[in-house]
Amino acid sequence: MNFYNKYLDIVKKNNSYVCVGLDTDIKKIPQCLKSADNPMLEFNKQIIDATKDYVAAYKPNFAFYISEGITGIKTLKETIAYIPSHIPVIIDIKAGDIGNTMEQYAKSMFCDFKCDAITINPLMGADVFDACFKIKDAYVFALALTSNPSAKDFFKHHELSDKIATTINSYGVIKTGAVVGATQTQDLTNMRNLMPETIFLIPGVGAQGGDLEKVVQLAKHNTQNPNFLINSSRGIIYANNCQTEEFAQKAQEACLNLKNQINKLLLT
Amino acid sequence: MNFYNKYLDIVKKNNSYVCVGLDTDIKKIPQCLKSADNPMLEFNKQIIDATKDYVAAYKPNFAFYISEGITGIKTLKETIAYIPSHIPVIIDIKAGDIGNTMEQYAKSMFCDFKCDAITINPLMGADVFDACFKIKDAYVFALALTSNPSAKDFFKHHELSDKIATTINSYGVIKTGAVVGATQTQDLTNMRNLMPETIFLIPGVGAQGGDLEKVVQLAKHNTQNPNFLINSSRGIIYANNCQTEEFAQKAQEACLNLKNQINKLLLT
Repeated sequence: MNFYNKYLDIVKKNNSYVCVGLDTDIKKIPQCLKSADNPMLEFNKQIIDATKDYVAAYKPNFAFYISEGITGIKTLKETIAYIPSHIPVIIDIKAGDIGNTMEQYAKSMFCDFKCDAITINPLMGADVFDACFKIKDAYVFALALTSNPSAKDFFKHHELSDKIATTINSYGVIKTGAVVGATQTQDLTNMRNLMPETIFLIPGVGAQGGDLEKVVQLAKHNTQNPNFLINSSRGIIYANNCQTEEFAQKAQEACLNLKNQINKLLLT
Repeated sequence: MNFYNKYLDIVKKNNSYVCVGLDTDIKKIPQCLKSADNPMLEFNKQIIDATKDYVAAYKPNFAFYISEGITGIKTLKETIAYIPSHIPVIIDIKAGDIGNTMEQYAKSMFCDFKCDAITINPLMGADVFDACFKIKDAYVFALALTSNPSAKDFFKHHELSDKIATTINSYGVIKTGAVVGATQTQDLTNMRNLMPETIFLIPGVGAQGGDLEKVVQLAKHNTQNPNFLINSSRGIIYANNCQTEEFAQKAQEACLNLKNQINKLLLT
């Protein structure tokens, strides 16, 4: 089943639009896990156990795994294998390269790591998308407008982000979503107009300072089918900066809290 | 020693501007190595032994290593460790993300894999560069204009590539180079004008169809200090599609041939 259908099923089952970002930083893992065989993996497993009934997706951030070398790569693979198969997994790798190289990334991410979607950087154009779609059931979230302070440098160059959004829309909602930064609330309406039914992956709520109320209001497709995923990484997995065995419970509370907040805002 | 100084030394020592792209595809490794313990590593070692006196840099392409999973990552690390330390190594990963994530990539590539430079995708703006420069002696090659068929889709949007080039130039030649695609020969003069002394990393000669004569003429800073690296991957490492033990010798011939062609063109 491809990402799109998994998404439709899970938001019904879990009644959630929360994507939990697994940006697992070895330096931030609670003290109580430091002596585990593989602290990163043990941390991820407990986070997944605690949140799996309240999420719509998990999004491991590739950078945090490669930065732990071979152990990190092993951990990424084992983490994805541990996630229940009905919950979609997005590897956040922001890959973008020429055709033959993108094919290697796509093969690796979809067939070896067995994720359901990857994030891509569209700067190099259609080749980036097309190479991924050589893999059956591949789904990509392309960067349309990001939430970091310097996003304006190039995304805002003569409405480049509009042009990217139009491209994303042309690939169709079954195969292509959009990363749309939540700190740019003034742009959310515009992005939604350009991509009416596309699933938005929205980072930047929480640590990056996005305003949840505006995001839900402006980024949703409609109330029944908002067609978005609201990502929180640090705000959930390191909730309350908890260093004891209660960290997973704190993460669960943060996840449930975000889920409920979003659902409440969808009703208003 | 940072990449910039290594580059200045090696082009003098080896009298070469050739960058060998180590896009080592397990499916293209010669038959004669298929039974080796680690065919990818053995292949790379023999290519390095055969070409090390004729190159200015090596550029392993991250995608081809991650696509072999844990073995691939191990091979990437061992390959870089095998390259003589006076030859600069560029990991082609085209990373581009928010600050805290880019710091993970930079830490991994420069401190763990111990490369001298990485390629970055500048779409997300200054944050991508700045996070890398938190690492002492970090050097980045940012995509300014690529050589793939769909490069025009966004790089050509209201001269986005000019704006990126101006940004690259502003970071200074000691820390920042530019990836400039060789198939866009009509743009090389423009790119050189915007980045007069920047080191250009020029892919696309050979398999991607770039015209070497025009590239050397138009992309050089000047004849004494052309300030470029001309990359060839498939054209050198799979020279003549050789399947026998002569593959490394064929690679050496292809590398030497490219080196001599470039040097001859620099004299005219």
